[in-house]
Amino acid sequence: MRCDVVAVGTELLLGQIVDTNSSWIGEQLALSGIDSLRQTKVGDNLDRIVGELRDALARADAVIVCGGLGPTQDDITRDAIAEVMGVALVRDHDLEDRIRSMFGSRGRFMPDNNLRQADVPEGASILDDMPGTAPGLRCPVATPDGEKVIYAVPGVPWEMQQMLTGSILPDLRRRSGDTSVIRSRVVRTWGQSESGLAEMLAAYHDELEETGRCTLAFLASGIEGLKVRLTAKAATAEEADALLADEVRTVCGVLGDYVFSVDDESVEEVVVRLLHEQGLTIGAAESVTGGLITARLTDVPGASAVVRGGVVSYASDVKFSVLGVPEGPVVTEEAAMAMARGACEVLGCDAAVSTTGVAGPDPMEGLPPGTVWLGTCVDGEAAAVTVRLPGDRDRVRQFATISVLNLLRQQLERRAR
Amino acid sequence: MRCDVVAVGTELLLGQIVDTNSSWIGEQLALSGIDSLRQTKVGDNLDRIVGELRDALARADAVIVCGGLGPTQDDITRDAIAEVMGVALVRDHDLEDRIRSMFGSRGRFMPDNNLRQADVPEGASILDDMPGTAPGLRCPVATPDGEKVIYAVPGVPWEMQQMLTGSILPDLRRRSGDTSVIRSRVVRTWGQSESGLAEMLAAYHDELEETGRCTLAFLASGIEGLKVRLTAKAATAEEADALLADEVRTVCGVLGDYVFSVDDESVEEVVVRLLHEQGLTIGAAESVTGGLITARLTDVPGASAVVRGGVVSYASDVKFSVLGVPEGPVVTEEAAMAMARGACEVLGCDAAVSTTGVAGPDPMEGLPPGTVWLGTCVDGEAAAVTVRLPGDRDRVRQFATISVLNLLRQQLERRAR
Repeated sequence: MRCDVVAVGTELLLGQIVDTNSSWIGEQLALSGIDSLRQTKVGDNLDRIVGELRDALARADAVIVCGGLGPTQDDITRDAIAEVMGVALVRDHDLEDRIRSMFGSRGRFMPDNNLRQADVPEGASILDDMPGTAPGLRCPVATPDGEKVIYAVPGVPWEMQQMLTGSILPDLRRRSGDTSVIRSRVVRTWGQSESGLAEMLAAYHDELEETGRCTLAFLASGIEGLKVRLTAKAATAEEADALLADEVRTVCGVLGDYVFSVDDESVEEVVVRLLHEQGLTIGAAESVTGGLITARLTDVPGASAVVRGGVVSYASDVKFSVLGVPEGPVVTEEAAMAMARGACEVLGCDAAVSTTGVAGPDPMEGLPPGTVWLGTCVDGEAAAVTVRLPGDRDRVRQFATISVLNLLRQQLERRAR
Repeated sequence: MRCDVVAVGTELLLGQIVDTNSSWIGEQLALSGIDSLRQTKVGDNLDRIVGELRDALARADAVIVCGGLGPTQDDITRDAIAEVMGVALVRDHDLEDRIRSMFGSRGRFMPDNNLRQADVPEGASILDDMPGTAPGLRCPVATPDGEKVIYAVPGVPWEMQQMLTGSILPDLRRRSGDTSVIRSRVVRTWGQSESGLAEMLAAYHDELEETGRCTLAFLASGIEGLKVRLTAKAATAEEADALLADEVRTVCGVLGDYVFSVDDESVEEVVVRLLHEQGLTIGAAESVTGGLITARLTDVPGASAVVRGGVVSYASDVKFSVLGVPEGPVVTEEAAMAMARGACEVLGCDAAVSTTGVAGPDPMEGLPPGTVWLGTCVDGEAAAVTVRLPGDRDRVRQFATISVLNLLRQQLERRAR
């Protein structure tokens, strides 16, 4: 089964908007075992959209066209599809009512233009998922190679995404004759390299290759951690989910303490959750990270119950005067521990993290860029470790942030045992 | 002149990397007055790359192909171009020497694979700009419609960008017979809406339309401000630059204090520069922004000379105990001023900014989300203003950050007069 993607919009060609939709669709298709071998961007021009759709249909079994379904005059994807199908646009009165009632329920006045969105190519059907006012369309097209299909979705990402996962992917998989279900889970890790994780999972990986139970992929995702993705196929969603639950358990068992969460939870969300569970509050004393840690912690919904605040002691003497760090060199184990202790005291919190190091590009206190001390303090006990982080200034700051939050996560988990 | 873009890489189709290169290239082409009507992504497959290039050449006068120029076996863009040109790949010995010496000068061992990058289609020439080890190529192709051209550039953004601006755009414009030069400048503003700016510039805009001296565009760019872009065409770069210098002066004159910089300088860079010029140090007292302001200030190169640090007083009683804010409601003018004054005192700095407000989603102290007080303190004088910011939690935090930095920028500029 091959499904290509056409993104419509002059603003995409002009670089005013980056086309992230096609990337997301490509990833979802791959996870569903559907090939997407070509993705195209084209402007709001009828002839060129028609040409692209014909081109794509000649090569692929199905085409997803994204964008150009809105109510304005330059939204002409509907017209292009009708031309490719060789049919007229007809007003769908159920759809018209639905659009009218959507506006009514939000108490908003509906410009008549919006009814353009109720015009659909004759023979097309409306996708069940319709989170906004733009309907998604399933448009059968007779071709010399048999019946193919064009799916039209709006360019608004969350509308497009709901239509893709809810309606289009199941439909494509049905058309491909594949009635099985593909699901995936993500194990999030920190503290080990991609090759290190691969080595730890080598025997497991070989076993998977042999049995074909599921597939394994590594995805480096910056401050979101290094992800291990497990994908499985089964006759039903329940079966796939049960199978994956076992595999996730196995992977977590092998990777142990490197795993900070499964699926969507970020490391700062894990930390805020653990603190909440243990009835602790937190603060941060930041130097090299300059406020990033506190910014991430305060971005977690519900942070106000556990996050007291932070002290960014960028200048050395702010470390001395505000946090009570003993005067002397500041990129040291002692300074990192004293900063974490100082944060607990000044901010009145039960736990704290601290960072002090060299973001670069220049060395500091004789230490090369990337040298960072990470400190923690929980229940009055301070500790610190040093790491040598790769990359430029920005990456050093980002990696220091996830590294110290992960360190505290490990301590909080040990504390709960 | 029409130039289409082909991005090569299976990882782009799988959604592992978002194709931002094509968007950037599209924007640059548009600024140079060259149409880019179609942009395609294709995987690392010889037949499909050849097919895409032929397709693109049939429609456009020139094609930029991006990616697949590296040293590994799946880097096959060179091979695809040779096939389209109907020629063989030949080893370019000058290029071979250049690649060897690049590795030599960095003291690195060169794997033999890297010499693949010295193989070029017969008849192609190497672009002058070559910031990395992958050369860019200019490949003439005879077609039924006359000679066209394929430019090949690496997928590494900064390498691609240097080749595009340094070699390809001038070449394309020469080929189009357009010997004029197109340049643009950006005036960055904050504090006025897009329609507000348009209104202020309405008479000027009409005059530009009449005379055709240059064109005007508004670009909302989040925390980077609201940009006004001026683009002009002239016989020489010097002439275009001189013309734009006048226009920039005019626009700055009309928009006055809303303008925080011209071209690349961010608002935090302006603030750090002004502080440096005036011999002042800075600190921040943050609540709703949770550390974002300090993180941005400390991200400016050279920040350590002026940025002392910050206090993130997320919990109300940290405002009271650390910053000396009088107990009581904290989303108030008094609290914002007391926080800024407190930051100056605690951090030992000459100037400070502060934020306190409601990020949402829930109201606080009876105030709706988006209500923010922005405070400043310079030379011991505190001041505060309130704003009602639109958008979700993240946007409120981002907008509060740029708003308060812009406020301080205005005060520092007045102070210098």
